[in-house]
Amino acid sequence: MAANTILLDFSVEPAAVKNDNQMQVVATNIENVLKDYLTSLKQVQGLPFQGGLLRLYTADPGVTVFIRIYGNGLITINMEYFKGDKDNPLLTFELIKVLEQKLQVQLASFRSKMFPPIKRGGLLDVYLSSSDERLLEYDIDKVLFEETSPYQKVQIVHSKSLGNILVLDDLQNIGESDLIYTETLMARGKENYKDKEIVILGGGDGALLYELLKEKPKEVVMLEIDEMVMKACAKYMRSICGDVLDKYEGPNYKIIVGDCMKSLEEFTKEGRKFDYIFGDLTDVPISQKHSGQLWTFYQKVLQMCFKLLRPDGKFMTHVNGICSSESVDMFKSQLDNIEPPVKFTTSRAFVPSFMEDWIFCQVFFDGNKKE
Amino acid sequence: MAANTILLDFSVEPAAVKNDNQMQVVATNIENVLKDYLTSLKQVQGLPFQGGLLRLYTADPGVTVFIRIYGNGLITINMEYFKGDKDNPLLTFELIKVLEQKLQVQLASFRSKMFPPIKRGGLLDVYLSSSDERLLEYDIDKVLFEETSPYQKVQIVHSKSLGNILVLDDLQNIGESDLIYTETLMARGKENYKDKEIVILGGGDGALLYELLKEKPKEVVMLEIDEMVMKACAKYMRSICGDVLDKYEGPNYKIIVGDCMKSLEEFTKEGRKFDYIFGDLTDVPISQKHSGQLWTFYQKVLQMCFKLLRPDGKFMTHVNGICSSESVDMFKSQLDNIEPPVKFTTSRAFVPSFMEDWIFCQVFFDGNKKE
Repeated sequence: MAANTILLDFSVEPAAVKNDNQMQVVATNIENVLKDYLTSLKQVQGLPFQGGLLRLYTADPGVTVFIRIYGNGLITINMEYFKGDKDNPLLTFELIKVLEQKLQVQLASFRSKMFPPIKRGGLLDVYLSSSDERLLEYDIDKVLFEETSPYQKVQIVHSKSLGNILVLDDLQNIGESDLIYTETLMARGKENYKDKEIVILGGGDGALLYELLKEKPKEVVMLEIDEMVMKACAKYMRSICGDVLDKYEGPNYKIIVGDCMKSLEEFTKEGRKFDYIFGDLTDVPISQKHSGQLWTFYQKVLQMCFKLLRPDGKFMTHVNGICSSESVDMFKSQLDNIEPPVKFTTSRAFVPSFMEDWIFCQVFFDGNKKE
Repeated sequence: MAANTILLDFSVEPAAVKNDNQMQVVATNIENVLKDYLTSLKQVQGLPFQGGLLRLYTADPGVTVFIRIYGNGLITINMEYFKGDKDNPLLTFELIKVLEQKLQVQLASFRSKMFPPIKRGGLLDVYLSSSDERLLEYDIDKVLFEETSPYQKVQIVHSKSLGNILVLDDLQNIGESDLIYTETLMARGKENYKDKEIVILGGGDGALLYELLKEKPKEVVMLEIDEMVMKACAKYMRSICGDVLDKYEGPNYKIIVGDCMKSLEEFTKEGRKFDYIFGDLTDVPISQKHSGQLWTFYQKVLQMCFKLLRPDGKFMTHVNGICSSESVDMFKSQLDNIEPPVKFTTSRAFVPSFMEDWIFCQVFFDGNKKE
């Protein structure tokens, strides 16, 4: 049950639309093709605009058609109608394809494009974005969990291809298909966690804790602020977190629910030292300009972490999608301010539920050789 | 350089839009919010439609805004303007987000959605669809090859996350990131190809041939009709096909350029037998209804293949995306008609460049036990 927005566009030679007269002919040609597919097609507006032409139509049942001709030869057609759950689509994918082909011939267009109908206002939101704001339509067929915590909107949705996915504030966080994410974050096979002391900042989905515990560390302390995330994952994401979120303490791990800064300060006072600290908080902010405060917070966290690390310790973190290069560069430049000086290596992996390559970073004190 | 279509939608209580008067107020509220972001916003049409309301606006520079209020409480807003390559976006992603939030408050909306601007008519087409017609925006930044052969449109594009991707008639075929596709198709590790005689139907990208040759078969004969695909892949997809497409004959392989049916008929006449036949032709048709002819062709090919297979031979093929269940079921039902009777196993894998799980099928003569 959703409004369906059908987008079609065509490119014609600018010479074919160089005056109002020609544009009227083009628009009427489009109208004539559409007439065969839409009942009672009726023009309700038409006016020249910015060297181009606009026309608005209505048709049965409840269809609107907006045609815009740009002076440079681009023609966009936007159709919209409401489709109930039990209604057949007014125009199927195959029929829109036919319409595209007929219009392409009619307009002598050298380039055309049809988009699958965009579904709007339905019960299920199947559209998420990549880190660089690309539109991705997922095969999501169920919402398993949806509540708003004091910190964020927490959802667990089911995708036919990807299994369950944790979505925080409309951002894909981790999916059942994403073992590669956790393994790249921890550089499995390259780092040795046996008998090590480890801190996880964030990590509420439990996947990192679960995988680290398999490597027999001395102790892992996880600092997560949002209990709702952990409760939801313990129930719906067991394939990635096992039973580690069922209780907040085990033989060699502890989960502290609260602000990680507070715990880091306490560790500092107690003079504790760690071999690994993982940054598994929310995404690194997109850019300095838009998220100055977040960067300031991040910088503070980083500085504290390096005070808590042993000389051969490492700070391991995810950064962002490879297409968000501004954010990746910003993260790297943050490392310049760390005292004592640090170096880093990076790794990358395609994360299925993100549908893009993600960058991970391993930071260590300068003077300690890169692995 | 493309038209940007910005889609926003909101859900309000139906009681808030139950008559024309209320709807006019809602539309004017929207107008008042938009005024702060768009210069010279001017209404050029407004009319009741199907128990709802339509309004069309223009604004500077070259912006159109179409507002539609549905009687059930759904409100859609479609904005469109042309953005040159060097122009800053009129509304950035962050600004659209702000606009969404302001409108949500203004409309007392309980659900809202913003889409990243949809780019139309640009030089680069970054939108592809999944097997079940979901819209996917790729991080494609270059077209490396584009020509039309007698059989199809052949493109090789570059994606920042996925490397080079072969696109045939606007369908993703294989990417440099998709070794998993070839390995699942051939059931690597489960099947033994050493000293075996093998036919590949299609396979023009060369990946299957390349991987099979690593397993020391006696001979692989590949039957591909489209030379342009092979030439393009030999140049731009070398990481998946190595040098196997550089010449059409090697110590233990041969590529026959032409209609696979003809070759299969010749093999039959010659009384040749094979251990494995791979179906690596274009996708299995979507449904009986829309692609009857294709199914008839497919059925014919299948029947011939099973005549050419040794008693312990296998027919191995990709089928379709898991969301295209109609197509997968149709394929399975095709197997019922094969003489002598056959059985099958299936496997599935997430194929990065398809951004979905894909089904693969291994068919063998009934009586031979499943591996």
